[in-house]
Amino acid sequence: MIVSDEEDIPGLVRLVEMGSRDGLQNEPADVSTDDKITLIRFLNETGLTGIEVGSFVSPKWVPKMADSGEVYDRIEKRVGVSYPMLTPNLRGLEAALEHGVREVAVFGAASESFSQKNINCSVAESLDRFEPLCKQALEAGLAVRGYISCVMGCPYDGPTDPAKVAEVAARLDAMGCYEISLGDTIGTGTPLETKRLIRAVSDAVPVERLAGHFHDTYGQALANIWSALAEGVTVFDTAVAGLGGCPYAKGATGNVATEDVVYSLEQSGIDTGIDFDRLMAAVDFASDIVGREPVSRVGRAVRAKRGA
Amino acid sequence: MIVSDEEDIPGLVRLVEMGSRDGLQNEPADVSTDDKITLIRFLNETGLTGIEVGSFVSPKWVPKMADSGEVYDRIEKRVGVSYPMLTPNLRGLEAALEHGVREVAVFGAASESFSQKNINCSVAESLDRFEPLCKQALEAGLAVRGYISCVMGCPYDGPTDPAKVAEVAARLDAMGCYEISLGDTIGTGTPLETKRLIRAVSDAVPVERLAGHFHDTYGQALANIWSALAEGVTVFDTAVAGLGGCPYAKGATGNVATEDVVYSLEQSGIDTGIDFDRLMAAVDFASDIVGREPVSRVGRAVRAKRGA
Repeated sequence: MIVSDEEDIPGLVRLVEMGSRDGLQNEPADVSTDDKITLIRFLNETGLTGIEVGSFVSPKWVPKMADSGEVYDRIEKRVGVSYPMLTPNLRGLEAALEHGVREVAVFGAASESFSQKNINCSVAESLDRFEPLCKQALEAGLAVRGYISCVMGCPYDGPTDPAKVAEVAARLDAMGCYEISLGDTIGTGTPLETKRLIRAVSDAVPVERLAGHFHDTYGQALANIWSALAEGVTVFDTAVAGLGGCPYAKGATGNVATEDVVYSLEQSGIDTGIDFDRLMAAVDFASDIVGREPVSRVGRAVRAKRGA
Repeated sequence: MIVSDEEDIPGLVRLVEMGSRDGLQNEPADVSTDDKITLIRFLNETGLTGIEVGSFVSPKWVPKMADSGEVYDRIEKRVGVSYPMLTPNLRGLEAALEHGVREVAVFGAASESFSQKNINCSVAESLDRFEPLCKQALEAGLAVRGYISCVMGCPYDGPTDPAKVAEVAARLDAMGCYEISLGDTIGTGTPLETKRLIRAVSDAVPVERLAGHFHDTYGQALANIWSALAEGVTVFDTAVAGLGGCPYAKGATGNVATEDVVYSLEQSGIDTGIDFDRLMAAVDFASDIVGREPVSRVGRAVRAKRGA
């Protein structure tokens, strides 16, 4: 399906909500288990078909995700909606299986320094560790989503070579990931860089299995989404109210806001399946539990108009 | 000139700075004449080739622009840089001539209600008033730039018909405006709407004489710029630090920030002629005089990194 009068732009886009995991994990506020569950209740009402719930990682490393299992158990799982859980290792996968999780996600990087500083091993070593995890998950009937971080730049190594991203994507694809989400972790990438990235990576993995995960730190995310869309990417990761900041530039923006993207696509005639008013209700709730205004332009404009 | 490996995107873009006029006019802070002059000194250093200085309008209506004549007299006028002044009527043009101004700008609208509420006359009447103004300005050897507001939406009438914008643009073109800047005054337009707008208007006026003036109220401005760029528009209006708000959504964003645009274009390999570090110095000064952080993502990210 394409937008009727703009033949080069897909007419249907799927968004995968990151606010409840990537978002809350990087917010300074401590959010209660009940509030996390309520947030997902709001998100369930919007029409989103992918909501990342949490992470099975050692609470020593990420204390904010210590209640992910309980959150997963208690949320309503709707038919047709995926609720992925991040599983960085086999222990994480075991926990996922115990909780009856249907989809897990693994997290690779396209930058050596980032991999070393984040998980203490090289990119190749991290991919080797994912091999048995993916195998076991697939054998158990789970879907596996792959992430690659630092696809356009790294806080330590600077710009990323698209060929390196293509190489990591090919490995994750070979392991059976049904989709690979390309993450501009520090948000430095621009639209023409995005175009070049998608072209390079889609030589290795069909564009239908690629997703875009853009951070808005430098205000480029929405323009990058449109650039990727013109190259045929139709799945994007976003976070309600722009939840989550940028750990590499304190006070700066992280995940692109779901409402900025939904507004842009829907008003251009591209279907996201998401109800804007219900999404704004989720934005309001998300803002309440982290105790600040949404960072999204749309969230602020709609709330300002409402207040006026 | 085109970007070498991306043949459909122009490689050279001109930005016209709005911060010193449109921006400061809509900021709550009162900025002194000296500070306005200093801001333009900073902007002169960046490499910008167009800086809107002020407005010759009755101080009864726009008290913040009462010192525009003095500002114009005292700033350094560099060779190759235009310093347009807004002249809404013949009295404004007289003042411009007295001050030796070389370029003036006139302001039409594509929405009847907006025109009525803003200047108490219909769109057609306002264009009729500009006829003698443009004639006199051109006879005196001045360049005239035309603006059209509400090109994608109006706070009173909702969405704007691109055909109406094309009609107004054709009139301004016929009056001798060397360039017509299409203003998304309330910032509601999205990338595919932008594409359709540019296609409709460029049937009436050659795309080389069109400029894009996008407000970032709904976070669409940069994506719209990229969309217009792909249609051949190479001139965009921007405001340092995102100066100016949105009078129709208090607390929301107005003009797209110059630094967000320069970052995006330059890092994609598109030449703006603007020095990023000098631009950031102007951002810092602009933020100081209005007493708040820049609303731009790039301004915040760069300042956050610097502070870290």
